[in-house]
Amino acid sequence: MLGNFTFYNPVKLIFGKDALKLLAAELIQYGPRVMLSYGGGSIKRNGIYDQVMEILRITGKEVFEDPGVMPNPTIGKLKEGARIARENNVDLILAVGGGSVIDYAKGVAASAWCEEDPWEKFYMREENPSCRIIPVGSILTMVGTGSEMNGGSVITNPDLKLKIGKVFGPENFPKFSVLNPEFTYTVPHYQMVAGFFDIMSHLMEQYFSGEDDNTSDYIAEALMRSLIRNSRIAVRNPRDYEARSNIMWTSTMALNTMTKMGKAQDWMVHMIGQSIGAFTDATHGMTLSAVSLPYYRYIMPYGLPKFVRFATEVWGVDGHGTDAEVAEKGLQAMEAWMKEIGVVLHAAELGVTEDMLDDIAAGAPICTGGYKVLNHDEIVEILRRSM
Amino acid sequence: MLGNFTFYNPVKLIFGKDALKLLAAELIQYGPRVMLSYGGGSIKRNGIYDQVMEILRITGKEVFEDPGVMPNPTIGKLKEGARIARENNVDLILAVGGGSVIDYAKGVAASAWCEEDPWEKFYMREENPSCRIIPVGSILTMVGTGSEMNGGSVITNPDLKLKIGKVFGPENFPKFSVLNPEFTYTVPHYQMVAGFFDIMSHLMEQYFSGEDDNTSDYIAEALMRSLIRNSRIAVRNPRDYEARSNIMWTSTMALNTMTKMGKAQDWMVHMIGQSIGAFTDATHGMTLSAVSLPYYRYIMPYGLPKFVRFATEVWGVDGHGTDAEVAEKGLQAMEAWMKEIGVVLHAAELGVTEDMLDDIAAGAPICTGGYKVLNHDEIVEILRRSM
Repeated sequence: MLGNFTFYNPVKLIFGKDALKLLAAELIQYGPRVMLSYGGGSIKRNGIYDQVMEILRITGKEVFEDPGVMPNPTIGKLKEGARIARENNVDLILAVGGGSVIDYAKGVAASAWCEEDPWEKFYMREENPSCRIIPVGSILTMVGTGSEMNGGSVITNPDLKLKIGKVFGPENFPKFSVLNPEFTYTVPHYQMVAGFFDIMSHLMEQYFSGEDDNTSDYIAEALMRSLIRNSRIAVRNPRDYEARSNIMWTSTMALNTMTKMGKAQDWMVHMIGQSIGAFTDATHGMTLSAVSLPYYRYIMPYGLPKFVRFATEVWGVDGHGTDAEVAEKGLQAMEAWMKEIGVVLHAAELGVTEDMLDDIAAGAPICTGGYKVLNHDEIVEILRRSM
Repeated sequence: MLGNFTFYNPVKLIFGKDALKLLAAELIQYGPRVMLSYGGGSIKRNGIYDQVMEILRITGKEVFEDPGVMPNPTIGKLKEGARIARENNVDLILAVGGGSVIDYAKGVAASAWCEEDPWEKFYMREENPSCRIIPVGSILTMVGTGSEMNGGSVITNPDLKLKIGKVFGPENFPKFSVLNPEFTYTVPHYQMVAGFFDIMSHLMEQYFSGEDDNTSDYIAEALMRSLIRNSRIAVRNPRDYEARSNIMWTSTMALNTMTKMGKAQDWMVHMIGQSIGAFTDATHGMTLSAVSLPYYRYIMPYGLPKFVRFATEVWGVDGHGTDAEVAEKGLQAMEAWMKEIGVVLHAAELGVTEDMLDDIAAGAPICTGGYKVLNHDEIVEILRRSM
């Protein structure tokens, strides 16, 4: 049964090979002072930086550069960005990069004019902004997080070894997001497939809950099927526009909140994965792939009918055998796909050591929407099996 | 391959049994003068009118009543509504009803402060509004058209025997739409199943185009599968909340423009169906069901791979036999479903007579996005087969 929900997602998505041509029309809707946030400089090597700067110049913008946003953006970097934004009284934050840069930009946008400590207010107490929010626009160069069409903002506190995702409201979503699939061609293979698994994980977190027959679950299955097919093409030919464009659109749809409407969600894999990230600085998608198989095999008995449906509808497994056998065949098909695209299957490869497991588990909040509410020891056991 | 597109849909959807409780919070964002548009009075019989009036009273609104919006709203009624809205300087148009009432309200909203003739400007020349647009909110009582989350506005000119759909931009979408599945319980069976087929037709119009493997098509398949399953439950028990809520959400998703992004579309069935409606005043969904099987059987050879996919992925037909045989089995499965839910299969039942066929065909604009661009004689032939 679909429960009560409110859906409101006013992000304007501009998609396709020609998407950047429409950036100027968006920029002129904001004042002249633009903060340009980006990561480690890959956008300078692949030419996107020069293209964007030219459009900023043509539209008469004064640009305040904010480079160096790291893959797991820290609260220290966020506070520095907030200072730059405030001191220069910027009218727009233009985030050019993957989910990390966009997540970071949302946090900066909410923090710049906020007197309180943003870590405490937004990420620990999960409060909403109570002061002026700077508009954010995004130009996406790596797919996976869905940050281009939602309010998610995952920030790491290295001192506390905590990596926490705040979900801001629609007033803090990007006002516009430019999605050119060609901009994702030069992402290294490791990051590309990590993003693919992140998409899969978002869909599974929303899918593995509830006992009804739900339109949102049908949509999640459709997106998973499209992702599986197109990811297999993209790993062989990263410049296959059809595959990359389908994956880009799938990624946005996977976490623009449409597929969760009216239903419970799990998110336990993300909580464990984020805690691994806080301890190791590992690539987000790989922290998810490392724990997913042990996690789903552990909870399978508690949500068996959904795992059977997952096996037959998503992976095309034939339905012969017991429910447990069919469900296991589905996870075996997923395991084969994970090996084919080349994601990490063992947390040890990410730098996780046995002595960290108890602390990683302690850093993962317990989720209650999935088929099994875990306790601390069970998380440790799943982490152990992931090694 | 996904082509260039812009997606921007800022409608706030408020969904569920408790949705109406959130209406007041929306209403207080607008001025005190509210025009209340609705249809033939069913909302007075089922109690929705009283509930809405109480919320309007509590929020201090002055209400200007605008009843009598007909199932196929006429341009004459639209001009009358525009006059009421303008003369009373209303701050909001609240449309309570099905797609007809919401389609009408969008037209009124764009026309009230427009000096030009709305029929000529919006529906014939397809121009966009160039003057003040009155905000529209909707409370949905019948599913099918998807009007609650798009810019569609279908208006009939009885004198010219033309029924034309204008697609307004996001500035003319409803600002909010209240979707309570229970409000659809009292819709008569004939109108209910006509709405179900309208949903199916929207998905098919967007699905049957292109030769690639497209994320939007996977989503369309998911929505069709959910619709087929839940419609079978709803015809047996119209008060099955799970089925009605899934159908309501499916209906909105089917035409909120998400499933057409980046791809060509057909819409020929809608053009023929709307022309039948202009000549007969028949229920919209039934005009679509009457022509769909002859139409799709006629174009099947031109898009055979997609019809095979439709058969296996949507209807679960086994893939044995030639492509043409598998495709036909898919349409047979659809025909069996149409008979099961009880939609009209023959245009003659809607009042269409042989002597009308040539004029109905002439009133249907030729669409070019589907698998076969029809000529006038082919439309006449499809209409003949639909009799």
